Amino acid sequence: MQVYDIITKKKRNIPLTSGEIEWLVKSYTDGEISDAQMTAFLMAVYFNSMTDEETSAMTMAMAKSGDMLDLSEIAEITVDKHSSGGVGDKTTLVIVPIVASCGVAVPKMSGRGLGMTGGTIDKLESVPGFRTAVEYDEFKEIVKKTGCAVVGQTGHLTPADKKIYALRDVTATVDSIPLIAASIMSKKLAMGDKNIVLDVKCGSGAFMKTPDEAQKLADTMVRIAENNNRNCVALVTDMNKPLGRAVGNSLEVIEAIETLRDKEKGEFYDLCIELSANMLSLAGKGSVDACRQLAVEAVSSGRALGKLREMIEAQGGNPDVVDDYTLFKQAEYSYDILAENDGVIKNVDCEEIGRVSLLLGAGREVKDAPIDHSAGVYFYKLCGENVLKGERIATLYTDKKENIDNIITRFRQAYPILSDEN
Amino acid sequence: MQVYDIITKKKRNIPLTSGEIEWLVKSYTDGEISDAQMTAFLMAVYFNSMTDEETSAMTMAMAKSGDMLDLSEIAEITVDKHSSGGVGDKTTLVIVPIVASCGVAVPKMSGRGLGMTGGTIDKLESVPGFRTAVEYDEFKEIVKKTGCAVVGQTGHLTPADKKIYALRDVTATVDSIPLIAASIMSKKLAMGDKNIVLDVKCGSGAFMKTPDEAQKLADTMVRIAENNNRNCVALVTDMNKPLGRAVGNSLEVIEAIETLRDKEKGEFYDLCIELSANMLSLAGKGSVDACRQLAVEAVSSGRALGKLREMIEAQGGNPDVVDDYTLFKQAEYSYDILAENDGVIKNVDCEEIGRVSLLLGAGREVKDAPIDHSAGVYFYKLCGENVLKGERIATLYTDKKENIDNIITRFRQAYPILSDEN
Repeated sequence: MQVYDIITKKKRNIPLTSGEIEWLVKSYTDGEISDAQMTAFLMAVYFNSMTDEETSAMTMAMAKSGDMLDLSEIAEITVDKHSSGGVGDKTTLVIVPIVASCGVAVPKMSGRGLGMTGGTIDKLESVPGFRTAVEYDEFKEIVKKTGCAVVGQTGHLTPADKKIYALRDVTATVDSIPLIAASIMSKKLAMGDKNIVLDVKCGSGAFMKTPDEAQKLADTMVRIAENNNRNCVALVTDMNKPLGRAVGNSLEVIEAIETLRDKEKGEFYDLCIELSANMLSLAGKGSVDACRQLAVEAVSSGRALGKLREMIEAQGGNPDVVDDYTLFKQAEYSYDILAENDGVIKNVDCEEIGRVSLLLGAGREVKDAPIDHSAGVYFYKLCGENVLKGERIATLYTDKKENIDNIITRFRQAYPILSDEN
Repeated sequence: MQVYDIITKKKRNIPLTSGEIEWLVKSYTDGEISDAQMTAFLMAVYFNSMTDEETSAMTMAMAKSGDMLDLSEIAEITVDKHSSGGVGDKTTLVIVPIVASCGVAVPKMSGRGLGMTGGTIDKLESVPGFRTAVEYDEFKEIVKKTGCAVVGQTGHLTPADKKIYALRDVTATVDSIPLIAASIMSKKLAMGDKNIVLDVKCGSGAFMKTPDEAQKLADTMVRIAENNNRNCVALVTDMNKPLGRAVGNSLEVIEAIETLRDKEKGEFYDLCIELSANMLSLAGKGSVDACRQLAVEAVSSGRALGKLREMIEAQGGNPDVVDDYTLFKQAEYSYDILAENDGVIKNVDCEEIGRVSLLLGAGREVKDAPIDHSAGVYFYKLCGENVLKGERIATLYTDKKENIDNIITRFRQAYPILSDEN
């Protein structure tokens, strides 16, 4: 096979065989194809997209480039969830305990955040003592014992994806739906997930800005899963405003605990129930309707919160945080944001809220940069709510003092209170 | 400036400024932009093309990457011709003497062939003693004395074009009209040409297969020239069959001499007169009609042939070849191709005739490979002519014996004689 011919075919929109795609991924990973030639292929994919067969073949080839885990060693049935990410997305912290407390194993590997706010791993590390760097054998033991675990990526998984992603990152070939889908799903395939619920975020705070794009990504990922003999359901969910009340690591853990304590009932709670119901249903616990009931009961009975406590303890964290939030690191400064006029919170710039959180210290701009677990934003008034002048709408938490006036101004502009005339 | 932003703009079809294009070309030539990032840009250009402003800026940036020659040191008015190349294209050998003999200086730098048949430089080197590797100072002296010279590229010209072309060659980004136009014209700008006649070949034996594509390339090159203050005319001419009677280096020189001797009157002669007329007219010798007359007289009077003799002598070649073709190296073997049936020569596969010439030894597949100056094909019967069974339609010349039956079969298939029923 010749890489030149493969590029030419993709350029001319002639479908490639699975064999050609596998050869391409393997040869590039092995260093036999140059970055320039791989880029030519990737940019041609940006313009001409890929067929389902091509996308599925690329995904499996990337998965097979490293270790392929076998989760059936842990439990007969396991289920996983993947979110395409957004501002304030702490669903994993809620749904993993819900699903595990309903008797379905959730062995979850998760990512660190590179961007505006921390990833699930960063959030969990705000719990004092919590260990996310866990070897595969211990990971298996924890799941066998408690029914769930959330750890960082372990082992030598998808080196092809890492190499291709790094190249896409510098050649402006990130925003291609089949390439995004292949990258996400290659990790899921390598991690051995058999049942996968996908939460594809859509809106100003997400990578997919329009419902059309989000649905296309969702459909592509489901077809990849099906073509590789996995069960998969995808929900497209809103990310035009931050998810829930908290953005920032420990603030989000606290919100997750409050949700599991059955004290938060709103869009975030509803989303967690919906995702849990789909996970339980995929794992054979009945219809989605029946599983919705199971999930609600797991929360209202306190079983799910108990499961979170168990998981924290199993991973070395201090389980008392569940009842005493002062055990989390506290931010040095907090700034209350009061309404400057009567009106309704509207036209929120979700992405800018994410950037404000980053400026407060909640995220990282470069890999391995330190993160401030206590920094972030807590919303007292949510998007769509009416507020009166002088009411507290949010509090910003940070260890930083410099530049805070500018950050507050940016926050106010991103979270505006519009009077009736507007 | 950031290369990522430039790639993104091109990808999204947002016009780039001249400054951005200049920065891109310079940074890539200086090694500050990776091959992968440049490839991302080039593939995006393949899909989204370039505006006139972008193409002109890219061309001038590539031209300025090396020496910029000033031909006004040689003569107040000079004129050049460029052909996009084809099978049997020996027009340069005829029109340079015609134009120079009409009093317009033609300082010509030309390329070596990489492909099916030799380039103009290879053809001239079939003349015993002829030197094409001439330094710029001597080149100027020869033109001042004889009015013309044809040499290989001298000096440090267009390194950016060389680097970008090498990258395009391995990343399947050659076939983009603005990139082809920029590559050709950057050399013309660097060589200091003020008046340029372009011969854009179109058909099965040319790079541009359709009249539409060829016209687009022609228009693009003319606009580049005009945007950079050069006078330029482009003719789109036929390359669905070999040009003239000879394909192969010394065979083509002989045909050029016969044409200048006013013994060959046909499409090839007509094309040479047309190109010469346009060159003379661009150089201020009057209307194209009037210049056509000048060109015809230059041939019929023998002045043009005299000029060729002069030029050969000035460049160290043996001028006696003009009168004695046995002074050329002779091929070891010649194979006459006789008609196997009555009919008409039709549906010629021009590109395959080129490949047959290559197999006979007339071209080179890799850079710097040796070339057999005597190898090639001579046609006794041209495309469209009626032939009778047993008539000689062509002769193949070569030093090779092996595989000749196969070559002859391929030739017959590429140059078919169709009977009335077909």
